[in-house]
Amino acid sequence: MANGRVVHTADRAIGSRQLAALLPSEVLARPGYRGLADAVRTLVLDGRIALHVRLPAERELAQALGASRATVTGAYDLLRESGYVRSRRGSGTWTELPEGHGPVGAHLLPGAGGYSADGDPGIDLAIAAMGAPEDSLTEALAWAAPRLPALARHPGYHPFGLPDLRAAVADRFTGRGLPTRPEQILVTSGAQQAFSLVTALLCRPGDRVVTENPTYANALDALRHARLRTGSIAVSDAGWDMEIAESTLRQTVPRMAYVIPDFHNPTGALMPPEQRLRLLAATRSTGTWLVVDETIADIALDVPAPAPLASLGPRGGADHVITIGSLSKTHWGGLRVGWIRATAKMITELTAVRVSADMTGSVLDQVVALPLMEAMDRTLPARLARLRAQREALVRSLQRHTPEWSWHLPPGGLSLWVDLGEPVGSALSERAGAAGVHIGRGARFGVDPGTFEHRLRIPYTLPADRLDEGVRRLAGALHDGVPLAPAVDRPYWVA
Amino acid sequence: MANGRVVHTADRAIGSRQLAALLPSEVLARPGYRGLADAVRTLVLDGRIALHVRLPAERELAQALGASRATVTGAYDLLRESGYVRSRRGSGTWTELPEGHGPVGAHLLPGAGGYSADGDPGIDLAIAAMGAPEDSLTEALAWAAPRLPALARHPGYHPFGLPDLRAAVADRFTGRGLPTRPEQILVTSGAQQAFSLVTALLCRPGDRVVTENPTYANALDALRHARLRTGSIAVSDAGWDMEIAESTLRQTVPRMAYVIPDFHNPTGALMPPEQRLRLLAATRSTGTWLVVDETIADIALDVPAPAPLASLGPRGGADHVITIGSLSKTHWGGLRVGWIRATAKMITELTAVRVSADMTGSVLDQVVALPLMEAMDRTLPARLARLRAQREALVRSLQRHTPEWSWHLPPGGLSLWVDLGEPVGSALSERAGAAGVHIGRGARFGVDPGTFEHRLRIPYTLPADRLDEGVRRLAGALHDGVPLAPAVDRPYWVA
Repeated sequence: MANGRVVHTADRAIGSRQLAALLPSEVLARPGYRGLADAVRTLVLDGRIALHVRLPAERELAQALGASRATVTGAYDLLRESGYVRSRRGSGTWTELPEGHGPVGAHLLPGAGGYSADGDPGIDLAIAAMGAPEDSLTEALAWAAPRLPALARHPGYHPFGLPDLRAAVADRFTGRGLPTRPEQILVTSGAQQAFSLVTALLCRPGDRVVTENPTYANALDALRHARLRTGSIAVSDAGWDMEIAESTLRQTVPRMAYVIPDFHNPTGALMPPEQRLRLLAATRSTGTWLVVDETIADIALDVPAPAPLASLGPRGGADHVITIGSLSKTHWGGLRVGWIRATAKMITELTAVRVSADMTGSVLDQVVALPLMEAMDRTLPARLARLRAQREALVRSLQRHTPEWSWHLPPGGLSLWVDLGEPVGSALSERAGAAGVHIGRGARFGVDPGTFEHRLRIPYTLPADRLDEGVRRLAGALHDGVPLAPAVDRPYWVA
Repeated sequence: MANGRVVHTADRAIGSRQLAALLPSEVLARPGYRGLADAVRTLVLDGRIALHVRLPAERELAQALGASRATVTGAYDLLRESGYVRSRRGSGTWTELPEGHGPVGAHLLPGAGGYSADGDPGIDLAIAAMGAPEDSLTEALAWAAPRLPALARHPGYHPFGLPDLRAAVADRFTGRGLPTRPEQILVTSGAQQAFSLVTALLCRPGDRVVTENPTYANALDALRHARLRTGSIAVSDAGWDMEIAESTLRQTVPRMAYVIPDFHNPTGALMPPEQRLRLLAATRSTGTWLVVDETIADIALDVPAPAPLASLGPRGGADHVITIGSLSKTHWGGLRVGWIRATAKMITELTAVRVSADMTGSVLDQVVALPLMEAMDRTLPARLARLRAQREALVRSLQRHTPEWSWHLPPGGLSLWVDLGEPVGSALSERAGAAGVHIGRGARFGVDPGTFEHRLRIPYTLPADRLDEGVRRLAGALHDGVPLAPAVDRPYWVA
């Protein structure tokens, strides 16, 4: 458990010691200008150093690294030529992105223009999400269309969400064992917005938060943007180490903890009931807000869908638990409908943050969501059956093409957390890109830089033939040509 | 021009001197417990003191105010009873909202549940927006429906926006005189999100930004949430004082300036071309990002629609200008489609912020937006004609019911910035609420607390009969019963 390690570097300027603390140990041991430039570039691309941040003056950084001034000058020159920094006369050297580069810290992105009809679209193994279930969206839209004109006579601002949808989401919680009133629901534009609103309301820059490690890459990005200090609870194939989690909560008293107890992303682990109770009790006793991400809770492949974690608390839910979810995995990510369940009072407060973030959500998406929510229990089984078949297909493909890799079969969720046996995830991901396979490095799911280099998250959300082709290409990238350069797969030295 | 006044109070705790600096001078002159409680409550409701912030210890605040401890204790007791603070044993007194209260700092909100079918909906003069134009939304949806299935086969994540829509928005800029490539467009969920993304990318807590004063209330809220220091450029019925604006830019060198040059909200003023050129030059020379909000630019009632401010710069637009806009005023606020126009490089950077904020936008809304954008030049004239008629109706109603009020007839936009002749805006707004009229106080548009108490923004976005009924009820609230208590309409004393 990394506890209290400072990851945020999103200030206007980064100091030389702060930068040194983020560099891998082999760069520190023998600083060369190429290695230094590569390391800084990786930090920028990972979002560890924010954009529009001033790097240390060359002389200062050279001193901090015990390197020659020429080394730093050479590194900055390389970065400038490749477009990762820009020097402004008299005001130093600032991070930026080369023209045309894809977004930084945006893990779940398809190609820059979205899905293009031009050329080979490649095989996208970076997104653990499927298209919408056959016909259901069309039917829902047909239901929604005649209902739109009445709503469209008004200005269309419903920051809390459409009343009917708030009620439908509340009813679903109640049916799952957590009695909930509509006033306890804020309808958001997806679960990512739910998380960023909760973070904005509850945390101030510098506050300490705890996440699982590894955890959802875009949640880590949101915490970095909010300039929070991130501690972590280790999750492995064996699950959560609740003893260490409890002691970290006691010692660091974080403002907020963020967990994915149901088919955890990326490991797929399912938190056992007794650990849920301990987590509830530990966060209550430290006054820590517990944010539970249920985005994947309904993707229960081999076990019954778990009850909401908050339902294990007092009847009506523990007040310090905030539950978020969305229709992105059960239905479609292009439909921006998610939610937050909290006390009615906190929902009111969150809505003010929401107004300042984006005012209100799509009315059309919310009306379409109503029949989808209504029909969910009838439509979900077919989707789960398809995912089971694709999971089986992915396993067969991995056994065939990459027998040296290993994985734990998760009881639910949308991906395998594959162990490569050696720390080559970043190198493999880069080489795979050239072969038309888009896949996120395991390192993107790690709280600390450079960790999880021996992992890849491989979703089974594509049809079997595409999965097989993707794994075949990954194996080709792994075995062909020169061996992949292993990365340093251990925590970095931190000042 | 208030320059460098610190408005942000969104830290975890507020100090006694910091709080004293926000209090009105009459409370400071003769501190009584009721006056103190009222003043703190107003600061919380205005978002000047954030929620979940610890107030100073009673003894400290008493010292800072030169008041008795009993005064502060009495004030805190009152606030506790009315639900605006909560005391936690051993950890002080924290701001919060009473159960069931509407959101704070959310100016443009209808009733808490959105438009309800129950009871008297009242007359909403707080929202300067209309329903969707007759039929156009239905037709656009009919066009979009058959196109959805092809998009729904993919996961639906398009963080930059659908390529066709990026191209359509770019074409519209080009047609208005500002050559723009699709890569320079990020499609957002409305203009408020556009503004909050730009702020998140460019500004860090404590950075200095400049807005007009008065300005759009929800933009001020977003700046407060981002913990920025707000300076201001005064805008009156006579327009912008560009000389003072230039000197303030020179003296304070703000990170960002936010302006609404086209039918400025709330005054309706239109910035003349020579002032646009001076603003462009002044911000360029101080290295200040200039954010131009074009949300209302198409609502040109008496003049031709203005060309984009950025088009006055070098061909292709000045790199330091970021232009935002949306379909909320020309079409419908319930359709969450807005945009940012900037350099292609900055659009890439903004998209990473967007992914961490809410991942991506509604696909359905974006497909529906395509035919609406296409038909805009054909559909807009009828909407503008209706707004002209309603503006005329509002003027007649004001002349009839409240002849003592005055206003400047704006050449475009959606509202009148009415001068009440005395600083009774807050009191009137409160009393009007009891009469079923929802209207925002002028003070919500002011950078500094307690200013613009003699103003109301009255939109002409309702039908003539509703406008007349609304003004009639406002006049009733103004004239009936005891005279309204005037507020202190001048800048507060600041430590």
